[in-house]
Amino acid sequence: MKITIVGGGSWGTALAKILGEKKFEVSLLVRREAVYEAINKEKENPFYLPGIKLSEKVKAELEPKKAFKDSQIILWTIPSFALKENLENLKTYVNKITYHISGIKGIDWETKKTPFNILKETLPKDCKIFVLGGPSFAKEVALKLPTAVVLAGEKEEETKKMQELLAMPYFRVYRSDDPLGVEIAGALKNVIAIASGISDGLELGLNARASLIARGLIEIVRLGSKLGGKLYTFYGLAGVGDLVLTCTGALSRNYQVGYKLGKGEKLEKILTDLRQVAEGVKTAKVVRELAKKFEIELPICEEVYRVLYENENPKTSLNRLLSRTLKREFENL
Amino acid sequence: MKITIVGGGSWGTALAKILGEKKFEVSLLVRREAVYEAINKEKENPFYLPGIKLSEKVKAELEPKKAFKDSQIILWTIPSFALKENLENLKTYVNKITYHISGIKGIDWETKKTPFNILKETLPKDCKIFVLGGPSFAKEVALKLPTAVVLAGEKEEETKKMQELLAMPYFRVYRSDDPLGVEIAGALKNVIAIASGISDGLELGLNARASLIARGLIEIVRLGSKLGGKLYTFYGLAGVGDLVLTCTGALSRNYQVGYKLGKGEKLEKILTDLRQVAEGVKTAKVVRELAKKFEIELPICEEVYRVLYENENPKTSLNRLLSRTLKREFENL
Repeated sequence: MKITIVGGGSWGTALAKILGEKKFEVSLLVRREAVYEAINKEKENPFYLPGIKLSEKVKAELEPKKAFKDSQIILWTIPSFALKENLENLKTYVNKITYHISGIKGIDWETKKTPFNILKETLPKDCKIFVLGGPSFAKEVALKLPTAVVLAGEKEEETKKMQELLAMPYFRVYRSDDPLGVEIAGALKNVIAIASGISDGLELGLNARASLIARGLIEIVRLGSKLGGKLYTFYGLAGVGDLVLTCTGALSRNYQVGYKLGKGEKLEKILTDLRQVAEGVKTAKVVRELAKKFEIELPICEEVYRVLYENENPKTSLNRLLSRTLKREFENL
Repeated sequence: MKITIVGGGSWGTALAKILGEKKFEVSLLVRREAVYEAINKEKENPFYLPGIKLSEKVKAELEPKKAFKDSQIILWTIPSFALKENLENLKTYVNKITYHISGIKGIDWETKKTPFNILKETLPKDCKIFVLGGPSFAKEVALKLPTAVVLAGEKEEETKKMQELLAMPYFRVYRSDDPLGVEIAGALKNVIAIASGISDGLELGLNARASLIARGLIEIVRLGSKLGGKLYTFYGLAGVGDLVLTCTGALSRNYQVGYKLGKGEKLEKILTDLRQVAEGVKTAKVVRELAKKFEIELPICEEVYRVLYENENPKTSLNRLLSRTLKREFENL
């Protein structure tokens, strides 16, 4: 069986490594020639997962025709903003393939749709679409450190097949019937991770960070359930699990953006230095529009928006969050 | 107004500091003469919160009679195992005082009752009992770092009074109507914190720790709801918030116990070195009996029990946890 991974970043490469070890033919469709060369010659992606050896079964491709030839499954690991364009450009190939797994964590800021929605609308009706979520830093997966993720699909029997395809002893895959919830959780947590980073950058302590995570979860549930996600997803690995990981682990790009903002750096410089996509920055904008649309209060997301887009001082923002009037914990839920 | 705090550990001292700053008369009932001397002479508790100055309003007492004289509110901050004995020894004083706030996080291992249950059964019927929970390392509270906690009581108007009594700009107090849930969450999270510490001691990585936290929350909900706690409590500050804090912050005693177990130290030595109470060690035993009684599966708590009480190798335990058969995420919830 051959699997094509679209996107040669750290997550795509880590998944390629697992699937290669499971003896599948893996084709990694990449954009940069240097990545292509390194993977095929050195069996390594030095730009995103330096020092990690890939199986001989993993081949990088620059040409879609070769990447998708005889492929039965596509794994999408590109940034969320690039999905629509890729689906359009690659349609002659991807429309013929039945199984699509999305590992994308973000919401398209123009249409306010999630990758699952976009795949569902764009691909032919008989395509089967799955979402992969949960707490999983690519680097740790590549190092074979134990990781538990969630694979969500609409039909349990089909989901089971994909679950078995991906699972490894060190890469535990749980099944879920809530693809939309899994990706909403994955997208929204990035905004809270920015807040958590700001708090740490300001050196507000572990109590403050833990309360931002807990109150942030309430905001994820509030918006996520309006968007159609299920409560148990937000309270599970893809929700709480990924939220905790991203808000407490310095490996997270979104946390890093927040941390540097807390330290007084300017957003523009931070994003230039980062050189990778921090999905939360764009998600914060979408979230704000959605909060207005649904008329719900999301105080943490609102402050993150102000810091990112209205040049608000992070300290003022956090202080405002922490000095709201005394209230019942679940007043607005 | 005078408030008596029973227990001169770090949490009792931190709360004494807040209440002293709010200009209440604070009497801290302590056992050790050295603590008594230091607080009254140096306005500091060098054993539990070194370097933190207390207000002139805070006085330590060794004699209950003096500590409770003219007092209107009691704050309980002793270890859970000491509550019953204290209630018995101090009954002539404490039975006369109407307001009782419990800051105790544990379950009595003999009777399997929570502090709220014990206070409710032992104190006169007209006493009003509240529970204080949420993510709050005492040291950070003492340093005035922003902290959000939950105060739970049965009658909202009364809870509001206590909420206003405790709140400070840097110590945000949310109201809840679920005292039992708040303390069950506070007790059970200590067992998961031990698991999280073991994982970090074994250097299993951030993905593994995040999934233990997320799967641990599911166990807290599973047992906690059987014990009468409300779901929103487990998903709020006292649940998720305190769980995250305790499982990711090296300041937690329970986490430390786990961490050292993961590093290969023996439990006996760890507990001797610690010199403070790690509630989770005893809670793990209670939890196991309760799991049997209710016939529920709590795999993480079960493994923590085996490591603590059956001399199981921590690595074997964690591997068993992480290699269970592939399944749906919410099968047993």
